[in-house]
Amino acid sequence: MIKALEDDLAQNFNIHFNNHDLLDEAFTQASYVNEHPNQGLKFYERIEFLGDAVLQIVVSEYLFKRYPEMPQGKLTRLRAAMVKEDSFSDFAKECHFDRYIRLGKGEELSGARQRSSLLCDIFESFTGALYLDQGRDAVEEFVQKVIFPKLDEGRFDHVIDHKSELQEVLQVHGDVDIDYQLIAETGGENDRVFEVELIADGKKLSRGKGTSKKLAEQNAANKALQQIKSKK
Amino acid sequence: MIKALEDDLAQNFNIHFNNHDLLDEAFTQASYVNEHPNQGLKFYERIEFLGDAVLQIVVSEYLFKRYPEMPQGKLTRLRAAMVKEDSFSDFAKECHFDRYIRLGKGEELSGARQRSSLLCDIFESFTGALYLDQGRDAVEEFVQKVIFPKLDEGRFDHVIDHKSELQEVLQVHGDVDIDYQLIAETGGENDRVFEVELIADGKKLSRGKGTSKKLAEQNAANKALQQIKSKK
Repeated sequence: MIKALEDDLAQNFNIHFNNHDLLDEAFTQASYVNEHPNQGLKFYERIEFLGDAVLQIVVSEYLFKRYPEMPQGKLTRLRAAMVKEDSFSDFAKECHFDRYIRLGKGEELSGARQRSSLLCDIFESFTGALYLDQGRDAVEEFVQKVIFPKLDEGRFDHVIDHKSELQEVLQVHGDVDIDYQLIAETGGENDRVFEVELIADGKKLSRGKGTSKKLAEQNAANKALQQIKSKK
Repeated sequence: MIKALEDDLAQNFNIHFNNHDLLDEAFTQASYVNEHPNQGLKFYERIEFLGDAVLQIVVSEYLFKRYPEMPQGKLTRLRAAMVKEDSFSDFAKECHFDRYIRLGKGEELSGARQRSSLLCDIFESFTGALYLDQGRDAVEEFVQKVIFPKLDEGRFDHVIDHKSELQEVLQVHGDVDIDYQLIAETGGENDRVFEVELIADGKKLSRGKGTSKKLAEQNAANKALQQIKSKK
């Protein structure tokens, strides 16, 4: 049993595994199993296979429901940005999962512990283990803490274009005149902040700030979208 | 409402949709929506996005549980064979889904109705709609009828190697001597049938027939695996 991992999960996520073997399996690489024969150890790969699909459905359903007007192409690009190796690897590190992986000596020496592909695998295998141990709701709760806030923090904004999305939402029932007006420009040459106001058919909808006019506009559009959704 | 589709689903799968709009959406291509503006129609693509992930998790979890000894590599190959375009397109046709797709005239004339990529999309969008309407259990019930029996019918045997799998299962606790003995060869030159007997550590486990010795051995191994699993 990887005690420190269990403490970490309890403290940071209030997650308590019923089946400790499952959690051990999720954090054990084949190289470690090979170095400890006759201990009946299992390595993470089968659980990772399952975890991959669990993350796909949880992320897909969340995006589908959160963005009811978003066309499939954008949903697919957004999902791909969220479930890709680099993202999962970052999430794994945020959760301190890198500390608890059981590796063989050769793998350890070769720096596997910080390898993006391994960290991504472990994020998936942990999710798979959580799913097997406690079902889908527990996975959703975990992902609500670890993945979904990144959407609001703008981590995937390069994939989502809030301005286009707002246009689609507002123009469902016909043309709407959408205007972004610069209302303030503060800070010095190197820390300039722009603030814009979003006006749709003459009505002020929202304001947004950013280090460029483009970012300020995206933020204003995103705020307007949140307001519209909260009213639905 | 696509009435004939609803009748077909009720008769063949005992499936009754609560939200008829959802089912319509799942069977409507963008080309049809474009030809019928101002009817507030939606096309299948968003639901297909969701259905794709639903099928992934349902198939993954089934394989994970059905083959508890199967290594990840083989699970992944098997899943890929099951969830790929050609397979989904065949399943869609088996379910008569091709009959009910709502297409624009141009698409119809270009033969889209029999296009593998469209049929695959519709299989996914139907699954997505079923999931939204009735939840995961209903999807599992559907897939139990449409996809999983294909495993037993040997449709994916080119991906699964039953002989290797049996070896893995039998040798979990140490070496086992597995032998396949040809016990009969019947039929003429062009319809030859081979029958083999599978013997593990001197004990007769099963028999298998096939149009080649190799196929007969695979079938015998598969039978032995089924017997072992049914005892677990």
